[in-house]
Amino acid sequence: MATSLISRQLAFSLQKNVWLSASGCRYVSKAAAKTQVEFDYDGPSMTTTVPGPRSQELMKQLGQIQNTGAINFFCNYEESKGNYLVDVDGNRMLDIYTQISSIPIGYNHPALLKVMTNPNNLSTFVNRPALGILPPENFPDKITESLLSVAPSGMTRVQTMSCGACSNENAYKAIFIWYRNKERGPNTPTNEELNTSMINQAPGCPELSILSFMGGFHGRTLGCLATTHSKAIHKLDIPSFDWPVAPFPRLQYPLDEFTRENAEEEARCLEEVEDLIVKWRQKGKPVAGMVIEPIQAEGGDNHASPDFFRRLRNIARKHGCAFHVDEVQTGGGGTGKFWAHEHWGMDDPADVVSFSKKLLSGGYYHKDELQADKPYRIFNTWMGDPSKNLFLSEVLNVIRRENLLEEVTRSGKALLNGLYELQAQYPSILSRARGQGTFCAIDACDDATRDRIMLKARDKGVLLGGCGDRTIRFRPALVFKEYHVNLFLNIFNDVLAQHK
Amino acid sequence: MATSLISRQLAFSLQKNVWLSASGCRYVSKAAAKTQVEFDYDGPSMTTTVPGPRSQELMKQLGQIQNTGAINFFCNYEESKGNYLVDVDGNRMLDIYTQISSIPIGYNHPALLKVMTNPNNLSTFVNRPALGILPPENFPDKITESLLSVAPSGMTRVQTMSCGACSNENAYKAIFIWYRNKERGPNTPTNEELNTSMINQAPGCPELSILSFMGGFHGRTLGCLATTHSKAIHKLDIPSFDWPVAPFPRLQYPLDEFTRENAEEEARCLEEVEDLIVKWRQKGKPVAGMVIEPIQAEGGDNHASPDFFRRLRNIARKHGCAFHVDEVQTGGGGTGKFWAHEHWGMDDPADVVSFSKKLLSGGYYHKDELQADKPYRIFNTWMGDPSKNLFLSEVLNVIRRENLLEEVTRSGKALLNGLYELQAQYPSILSRARGQGTFCAIDACDDATRDRIMLKARDKGVLLGGCGDRTIRFRPALVFKEYHVNLFLNIFNDVLAQHK
Repeated sequence: MATSLISRQLAFSLQKNVWLSASGCRYVSKAAAKTQVEFDYDGPSMTTTVPGPRSQELMKQLGQIQNTGAINFFCNYEESKGNYLVDVDGNRMLDIYTQISSIPIGYNHPALLKVMTNPNNLSTFVNRPALGILPPENFPDKITESLLSVAPSGMTRVQTMSCGACSNENAYKAIFIWYRNKERGPNTPTNEELNTSMINQAPGCPELSILSFMGGFHGRTLGCLATTHSKAIHKLDIPSFDWPVAPFPRLQYPLDEFTRENAEEEARCLEEVEDLIVKWRQKGKPVAGMVIEPIQAEGGDNHASPDFFRRLRNIARKHGCAFHVDEVQTGGGGTGKFWAHEHWGMDDPADVVSFSKKLLSGGYYHKDELQADKPYRIFNTWMGDPSKNLFLSEVLNVIRRENLLEEVTRSGKALLNGLYELQAQYPSILSRARGQGTFCAIDACDDATRDRIMLKARDKGVLLGGCGDRTIRFRPALVFKEYHVNLFLNIFNDVLAQHK
Repeated sequence: MATSLISRQLAFSLQKNVWLSASGCRYVSKAAAKTQVEFDYDGPSMTTTVPGPRSQELMKQLGQIQNTGAINFFCNYEESKGNYLVDVDGNRMLDIYTQISSIPIGYNHPALLKVMTNPNNLSTFVNRPALGILPPENFPDKITESLLSVAPSGMTRVQTMSCGACSNENAYKAIFIWYRNKERGPNTPTNEELNTSMINQAPGCPELSILSFMGGFHGRTLGCLATTHSKAIHKLDIPSFDWPVAPFPRLQYPLDEFTRENAEEEARCLEEVEDLIVKWRQKGKPVAGMVIEPIQAEGGDNHASPDFFRRLRNIARKHGCAFHVDEVQTGGGGTGKFWAHEHWGMDDPADVVSFSKKLLSGGYYHKDELQADKPYRIFNTWMGDPSKNLFLSEVLNVIRRENLLEEVTRSGKALLNGLYELQAQYPSILSRARGQGTFCAIDACDDATRDRIMLKARDKGVLLGGCGDRTIRFRPALVFKEYHVNLFLNIFNDVLAQHK
């Protein structure tokens, strides 16, 4: 492995048509890669440590207005290109975090800039409509050619929203309405229901629940937060609902080496799910739906097998609970399929699939029966943003034209193989490499080491994100090629070698 | 009155430099008005009833994808200009609802189109940042020149968000965190708090409450919805929190004719507020904050006196509750001041002021002590949208350059006087005309009549919105001049005359 990773210095000095010796003994032409991502830079270029002096100055300025504790540095988005984020001190970093996984095809993609310069599109940016009452003429066509063209199996309906949290909040509402309407049958709501709803009391505001999973993340608004269980600091001091929390399987990696142990762990969790559904029904707080991520992202990149999800979906069906798959972070192609749940190979994978981030605005797909029976029950002023759908159409065109899902699968394999080799080489630092497509992760031995490695990598020109207690998550854009994988592995290897 | 309102036919035939005889015996030069709103049309122009055949066709198409029960018609935003919304059947309507009060300076304002054609702005649209971790270089300057330049008295801090509901959800969270930190004093959270928070239980997720008002509207996500009490259909079937709901004064209009009765009604409500705060503290669900709109909008345009708000603010202070003023609908100039709470004449009007709609994205201002103590407690992926701030800066420039707040005050007076005259003329149909600036309303005798009048007005080229049970609310853009008021009054008079 050590010999197959060329040094960072060499990587940086490479200019054109030089063959890189990459991990896994594959050779990749940098020039060939460049024709695919022609708006990309050649590599990182660092002039200061990060945050540099200009970032620090701006941090002080913004500190007068907001809490800046989470800010990494300030960015020059004009100069950023493709896989590279440029900061205000002139540092250019290979971005493997992409604004918390929300930049689909890199910075300043020419196809998106072209959307902006098309005069026919001006009005969509300048006049934001209230989509629920006064949509633009092209709205049905635009969502048909964008969101519906990638609709999950079995779903022909989609409700747009402005962000991930609003998507999940409204999806939960749709689930509660569907559940109560099922119970109500042909009857209309009683006066008692209507009156009590106005003062937040049952039966109008019933004691229904959404089952979620320990380690899950579904957003931070009060409804979403009741289903989020990734870190205490996100939840502390905020009132919540008494809703059931099931264990998410804690698998051993690589998955195919621990098939038996993992199957046992998944069976244990599924049993607990059924127990909780029964318990909460007995408590008078029936589970109207359950929500789960195909890969728990914020909570530490925890995977489960397709078999687990298939069985879970059956449990939901058996108990009359809606099955809501939250693809806010996993959706949009990072796993090598457009939706992570496609890896489960099911015709009827879910009742609701929510999205945001790489899809540029939010929303959720749902089965016909989950459409609210009356207008204004699922509603707000904007209900999405057609200007984001314009960009999404173009993103989808680029994904298709450039076969980006195949590229992601190829880069992802190279990335995961590289991580396997690195954890073999640095077993005291790294473990549990895992991933699907480029949606990969690896654990450090502890949180302090994880944070130190990430900062060192950043100073060497690689921007990474953390998740869970001690995990590094990889969330590159879909234009992250094998060439970039090798560039990353070289730098990461340097960081680890120096750390050792 | 009848003689002072010229007929609709005449109004439509007027071309240039013709003097309109307006309500209140004031004469307004249409030509003079036109120089101010030069991107405006001359008047409504109707070719079909609304929705026309093309809208109905699109409704069917969209019906395959979404619930279309709330859709009025489909729009041609390219052709819409100033105060006029054009639909897909070529109808051009005077828009006095402005996308649920969210279009600040009319459609396709040249100043906003110019923002789009400035190549320096391209990157802001194409690369949406995760503002909480990687803001653009100009972010502190941009929010200083936009949001902070109109900050409410006593507030130098602002947190941007993407929509109104997220703004209120996060403002509530900031209030809960502030309240618990006050109780906690110098102590750090206990392990029990951290652990219980992960499973939604006290003490980590404490039983705190937000006091809200009957008739109030603060959004439809689960936290917001627990403080919304405008219509049962918004709340039915959605689980909620046991939080106190106080009565909002039911005043008699015009306010200055019922001073004594209204003062008594307000005193009754204030007493109830204090009782509820005590009761909920005794119940173990202390009131951490209260939230109120300066004018209850969705709930039926209910006003209260400045004295009521001053006393309420004192009650909040006395009981250690945060005072949150929700200006999502009232903010942005419609009342003739930028914030409706400015009419109260207070130096310290609130602890939190939330906004959205006319400010193009959401957020909340807050006092220093309400800033969360740690990063990531108030956080999400996007935390607003800098491309909307670009537009907002320009909107504020236009408001200042064209003295739009003064114009709103002037138009508002003409509108309210016209409504007074109409309700005197049609006492069996209309009553309770009220308003501040152009943020006006009038009640119909019942909901069916209200709806019928609004549909007739629409077919004659005036787009209105309803609220409450039987109220018509007026929410024009800030470029709605006296000329437009007169145009509206003429058409409205025709509708009423035909209805009679």
